[in-house]
Amino acid sequence: MLSRGFRAVSAVKSAGVWAVAHSLDDTARFCRRGRCSPADPAPGPGSDPDQDPVQTLHRLCLDRFYVAPGPGSAARFRRGLGCSYGPLGEELRRNLLARWWSSVTRSRNRVFGVSSSLSGPAGPEVQVRVVESGRLQQILDQQDLSREQLIREVRALLDRSGPARTSLLPGALQQFVPSLELVGRKLPFGLAETGLCFRPPDASGCSAEFTETSLVWFCSPRTSSQWLDHWTQQRLKWWRKFALSPSGFISSEVSEDELEEPASRGVRISYDFPWGRESLETLWSRGSAELLQTHNGVQSKLQCRDGRKTVPHVISVSGNMDRGATAFLSNSLQQLSKEDGKKRLQHRKVLKLHPVLAPVKVALDIGRGGTVELRQVCDGLLQEFLEAEIFAWPGYLETLPTSAEQLNAKYDEMGVLFSAVVGENTLESGLLQLRSRDTTIKETMHISELKNFLARYISAADNI
Amino acid sequence: MLSRGFRAVSAVKSAGVWAVAHSLDDTARFCRRGRCSPADPAPGPGSDPDQDPVQTLHRLCLDRFYVAPGPGSAARFRRGLGCSYGPLGEELRRNLLARWWSSVTRSRNRVFGVSSSLSGPAGPEVQVRVVESGRLQQILDQQDLSREQLIREVRALLDRSGPARTSLLPGALQQFVPSLELVGRKLPFGLAETGLCFRPPDASGCSAEFTETSLVWFCSPRTSSQWLDHWTQQRLKWWRKFALSPSGFISSEVSEDELEEPASRGVRISYDFPWGRESLETLWSRGSAELLQTHNGVQSKLQCRDGRKTVPHVISVSGNMDRGATAFLSNSLQQLSKEDGKKRLQHRKVLKLHPVLAPVKVALDIGRGGTVELRQVCDGLLQEFLEAEIFAWPGYLETLPTSAEQLNAKYDEMGVLFSAVVGENTLESGLLQLRSRDTTIKETMHISELKNFLARYISAADNI
Repeated sequence: MLSRGFRAVSAVKSAGVWAVAHSLDDTARFCRRGRCSPADPAPGPGSDPDQDPVQTLHRLCLDRFYVAPGPGSAARFRRGLGCSYGPLGEELRRNLLARWWSSVTRSRNRVFGVSSSLSGPAGPEVQVRVVESGRLQQILDQQDLSREQLIREVRALLDRSGPARTSLLPGALQQFVPSLELVGRKLPFGLAETGLCFRPPDASGCSAEFTETSLVWFCSPRTSSQWLDHWTQQRLKWWRKFALSPSGFISSEVSEDELEEPASRGVRISYDFPWGRESLETLWSRGSAELLQTHNGVQSKLQCRDGRKTVPHVISVSGNMDRGATAFLSNSLQQLSKEDGKKRLQHRKVLKLHPVLAPVKVALDIGRGGTVELRQVCDGLLQEFLEAEIFAWPGYLETLPTSAEQLNAKYDEMGVLFSAVVGENTLESGLLQLRSRDTTIKETMHISELKNFLARYISAADNI
Repeated sequence: MLSRGFRAVSAVKSAGVWAVAHSLDDTARFCRRGRCSPADPAPGPGSDPDQDPVQTLHRLCLDRFYVAPGPGSAARFRRGLGCSYGPLGEELRRNLLARWWSSVTRSRNRVFGVSSSLSGPAGPEVQVRVVESGRLQQILDQQDLSREQLIREVRALLDRSGPARTSLLPGALQQFVPSLELVGRKLPFGLAETGLCFRPPDASGCSAEFTETSLVWFCSPRTSSQWLDHWTQQRLKWWRKFALSPSGFISSEVSEDELEEPASRGVRISYDFPWGRESLETLWSRGSAELLQTHNGVQSKLQCRDGRKTVPHVISVSGNMDRGATAFLSNSLQQLSKEDGKKRLQHRKVLKLHPVLAPVKVALDIGRGGTVELRQVCDGLLQEFLEAEIFAWPGYLETLPTSAEQLNAKYDEMGVLFSAVVGENTLESGLLQLRSRDTTIKETMHISELKNFLARYISAADNI
């Protein structure tokens, strides 16, 4: 069995090579809490006090295909907003959303997926709309309109512009009644959804879309508080399961003066970023008022069986998965250092994403004297991995010569779990060299075993 | 092997029971093309000439958890816009998007997934923006603003509102340069993405979001026309693979006067809906002008290896998966009719979605005299299916008594592939009754075989 614990131990075992391991987050957290006194554990020799950990992380994400370059990219990244993801970032996001989905819908057989329209239910409180701005420009350009005519036309345009949802909750509340038949009107049950939501654009001009995950749980009023505890525990376990340093993910009860109407209790799951603590997921015990309001107060439509007839209470569990992806990136970035022969410090950055989340499971390269045959072997392996849905990196397509050290450094920054080198030897014996990101140890493996080894490794890490 | 052909034959074989099978689409198509003359094959005895096939389909989708009720739902459904999906519609959409994704990214090992920001690259041609409408209202309400001040404030608000993308293409073009390293600057390769896009709101007030699938393929200018043909063939094959009546899906070359700048060739894949032919996916051969423009004309950044250095041509393949889901729903709805003992016509509607797309693979019910033990057996089965990611319908939770006929009719309308009945007998012998949606034949099967049977059935249908 391959546990995170085991992997950590392996990393320590290989400390003969890389002296001190610490994550960027840890360093930053020490400093931010004002505990950077001499008595505190000193940051490792590899740390550069001048280096901004946010910049380091964002730079690495740009260089290593996680985030696409673009104006405002760094700010969006930091604020937990949807940004343009490169191929690796997109795969990380997909892995994360798939895990959330299966964790929520498969954990109990009473959660169903729904999908509500982006233009959620309209209401007086709608703050964001999708507006035909070309038409609005035209109205503003019309010289012959009086002030009053202008206002009238803009209002009319606004009225027919669809609202843009800021949360998935209203959609789920609407789907409550049609979903009752699914469950024979029996409590508890839940509706799950993932989708884009908007925050009102701020002064920086960032349109503020983000990917929300939402579980809306309908339960008996008697048990709502226990259910809130249950889901808090489940969700915190989930975040920590995929973390390298689980203690960075914490849950905290929302204090009474921070409670948002109509919630009677709330819990936040947050992550300690280098730039401060930010909320990843929020759980609210909301009572039944919003549900009643959504369905015009018709109690009879909403009643469920639960010993006696009752209108359910609502627990909402809403997460921001763009910020979640950033949290895992931040959490899994380790900086390691060693002195080389000439006593110069060398730095190595490793993105130790959990095997399940890591976008690239294996990179394929060819050894010296790469021939057409070796390329064909790699093509065959790549195809095999594609069919098994194992994301492999076609390093052998690269034509610029790179040293093994440079290549390993690059793959470590990409968070590539394993890298395989196919050489002349492989053609004869079928053996290839496999290097582990987490232990840096190289093993020899038969080419026919590679796919099963990877599948077993990932599923073992998943089943802990 | 279970082929669509086999399934069609089975349906005919069971014609002793249900006399005539025809899809709603077929009837509608005959009529629309003005071929409803006596010489034409007459619509089956079950058809009701007064019945609007669009209404029938929408009604069924509402009743059977595909589409959530709401204002404008029928119009959005018909126009191929994202609407609120119920649990079954959401599962269909997920299945469809997953199939598209694996078909495009796994078919060739040179397609990578990306994800661009919803607020795509801004430009003078931006027509839709996400606007903080609450703030806009406030500006309009300010009595003391002159006409000019008002216009200035609205313009400022508009300037800082993010554009909402109307296509995924610009995002992919932006990601071209950072992706070059992935492929060692070697052509051809592609960038795949799925995501929400907007059409400008129309007079009906519908905000017009839809889920776009996008493959942007970069290839040598010499081969771009062949690649367009290749992808047309692939995509048409894909649509037809999952269809009940594949001939409803057709491809057609875009005529020269319909070509959109800067495309030199275009192909449309359309579906013949009861309300007319609508485009599902469009392929354009776009040349290199937009790519150059995106990267400020810096040729050296864009050059790829292809014998000699060259700036690639772009092929775009963009689909509307909301309309795609509606096409499959429309295509798979069959109406069957028979005379009962009293010579009265009985109608049966069956949603014959492809086994891979069908949301519910199996429904679980209990026979007469349902006891606690029988429920426990079902609970166990349901959990087993959840873990195997087979969507099962917990029919045994329903408490209102329903006849077997009513239940089968409901499941057929839901498109449930198989329905299993666990009875007293199951406790003794382990045997249960399994009914097939497509053949209506009931078989006896051992409970331990059910999961593997379903998995084999679905994967056999997938591998044809």
